[in-house]
Amino acid sequence: MSSTKHSGLDHKNWQVAKLDLQTLPNIKNTINNKTKPMGALGQLEDLAQALALIQSQSNPFSKIEINHPSILIFAADHGIAQHPISIAPREVTGQMVLNFLAGGAAINCFCRAADVQLKVIDAGILNPVEQQHPDYIQQNIAAGTQDFSVQAAMSKSQLEQSLIKGKEVALKQIDEGSNLIGFGEMGIGNTTSASALLSAIIGLPAQSTVGKGTGISEQQLTLKMSLVDTSIQRLKQAYGSAKLAPLKALEEVGGFEIAQMVGAMLATAEAGKTILVDGFIVSVAALITYQIQPNARQYMIFAHSSAEQAHTLILEKLDAKPLLDLGLRLGEGTGAALAVPLIKAAAEFYNNMATFESAQVNV
Amino acid sequence: MSSTKHSGLDHKNWQVAKLDLQTLPNIKNTINNKTKPMGALGQLEDLAQALALIQSQSNPFSKIEINHPSILIFAADHGIAQHPISIAPREVTGQMVLNFLAGGAAINCFCRAADVQLKVIDAGILNPVEQQHPDYIQQNIAAGTQDFSVQAAMSKSQLEQSLIKGKEVALKQIDEGSNLIGFGEMGIGNTTSASALLSAIIGLPAQSTVGKGTGISEQQLTLKMSLVDTSIQRLKQAYGSAKLAPLKALEEVGGFEIAQMVGAMLATAEAGKTILVDGFIVSVAALITYQIQPNARQYMIFAHSSAEQAHTLILEKLDAKPLLDLGLRLGEGTGAALAVPLIKAAAEFYNNMATFESAQVNV
Repeated sequence: MSSTKHSGLDHKNWQVAKLDLQTLPNIKNTINNKTKPMGALGQLEDLAQALALIQSQSNPFSKIEINHPSILIFAADHGIAQHPISIAPREVTGQMVLNFLAGGAAINCFCRAADVQLKVIDAGILNPVEQQHPDYIQQNIAAGTQDFSVQAAMSKSQLEQSLIKGKEVALKQIDEGSNLIGFGEMGIGNTTSASALLSAIIGLPAQSTVGKGTGISEQQLTLKMSLVDTSIQRLKQAYGSAKLAPLKALEEVGGFEIAQMVGAMLATAEAGKTILVDGFIVSVAALITYQIQPNARQYMIFAHSSAEQAHTLILEKLDAKPLLDLGLRLGEGTGAALAVPLIKAAAEFYNNMATFESAQVNV
Repeated sequence: MSSTKHSGLDHKNWQVAKLDLQTLPNIKNTINNKTKPMGALGQLEDLAQALALIQSQSNPFSKIEINHPSILIFAADHGIAQHPISIAPREVTGQMVLNFLAGGAAINCFCRAADVQLKVIDAGILNPVEQQHPDYIQQNIAAGTQDFSVQAAMSKSQLEQSLIKGKEVALKQIDEGSNLIGFGEMGIGNTTSASALLSAIIGLPAQSTVGKGTGISEQQLTLKMSLVDTSIQRLKQAYGSAKLAPLKALEEVGGFEIAQMVGAMLATAEAGKTILVDGFIVSVAALITYQIQPNARQYMIFAHSSAEQAHTLILEKLDAKPLLDLGLRLGEGTGAALAVPLIKAAAEFYNNMATFESAQVNV
């Protein structure tokens, strides 16, 4: 894991194994013989199949195990948020980190309700929260990114550190027994960064990638779009193209929390564990992860459809259909936490539901 | 509860209280002061509001309590299923009851995963399952209904018994401490009865109310529609109208499980507890319940959107938006069981999420 051997900046340094599909017929057979009409459990059947396939790599006839499901919230601040593009001032990122540590935020409630472990990561907040807490991991890269409408959000070296730190925190969580890692984020201004990233990696203007975030005004929306378009123009002038490679896009218009998530997702997939993707911002990290290592897609489960219009674009590119669509627009990994009970239900039916034969039910 | 004093057949004998809305501003205030942008928890905010409003009637400043969430599966057979309109023979109803009691069905798995109590009720299956089991309630009205394409499905007296037995089982569950009662059903042929009921109570032809159930062929679908249309013709000749009062419709084309569900839902609403509605068949029972006592709607939470096209019709009439849409088409209350963790999450955020003030977060 030393940065000379594995800087994270070369795609080839990440090694996500393609899933071996030879267990798939056995998995499909297991699902189809349960006491229900074919396909009658809908998306939960697809979910059980995906989980079983990921876990069958080491043991072809294994049950699905959901061990210590966890959510990692990566928090960071954004230079772009110096402009009035958000409903809240930048100090709120740090204040919400304190709220997470005190157990008072929505994500805490949903994790408690579903028995999900929560870790809070300072990936680069403006005013460091100096607090000792067993679930708090301080790996702050810098006090927020630079304003990407005028310069690169971070240096190449900061990006490299972000990827490595993200990898480390995921591997630690896996070492502690978690095989399902959900992702959440907190960062005032980070939907703007996520939209700019999406524009940069798929080559679309702000109009296609910018939305209302947590609920900004029309005026703020206009400014947000204009800042993203300005940033795209900057990239076009610098690189001769509005479409950038994913790591270059992260460096130019990303955020520390998004970059650490990418490192953590790549590491989770490398370790053969399941990635639980939340809403818009986490999905941008998932799309970048996929662009770096397409095999990583096979390790991803999608929790919640975002109200952000551009989420549909990402889901199409990843051929993904989230489990929930409850109109959440909060981030924090709230959709991921709410999806965990559905994942447990899928595992329970796969593992313990009777077959037509065992239950003596006529097909 | 004696049948002379409360036959269930007179709408006025059911007394569902209209919710007093004077606590609503306080409830909305509680939700809006949580550490999140306004409305950012989407449908979970509506859900918390509905639960808090139901529970505030006895204590205006109460927390939301979710006590012993339960699912009642009502099982019965149908005379109409003598025709080949289902993917499975009629014995499967009884076989599935055994599967429920053995813990092997999908609903058992989902209840285990979400810590939900499950009770199985024989409301009128063909071949009684003689088994002692603490979660099995035998209140069989008859060995299946009559073929409603040629005669009334049940007698007036059988309908009355069904309503009263349904009421008793719900009240017992409430007495044992449950304040959230989910509904499920099992009965080969019961989507046909549900579609005929819907046709009869809203006056629409089979084309608008019949769907593929658990996955029948085109040929079976044609027969199913034709049987429903034949039944509607029969009613038109008998009553001079294709649109019947809800209890008359239950008697003519209903099922014992559906009628017992109606009695149980009315009793749950009368007791001021929450009704959790599952997919298509349970929703038909909910619509009938609403027609009998419109106030009952306020006590209902909707779990899952059915793949049956006619479910949309019912949801419009009840102004309801289910929490989940996972493509389930199994019945058994599976959607209801999967929705319970979302209900617990809504209660947890309502009860324990920090306010902006308490968490010292800048608005």
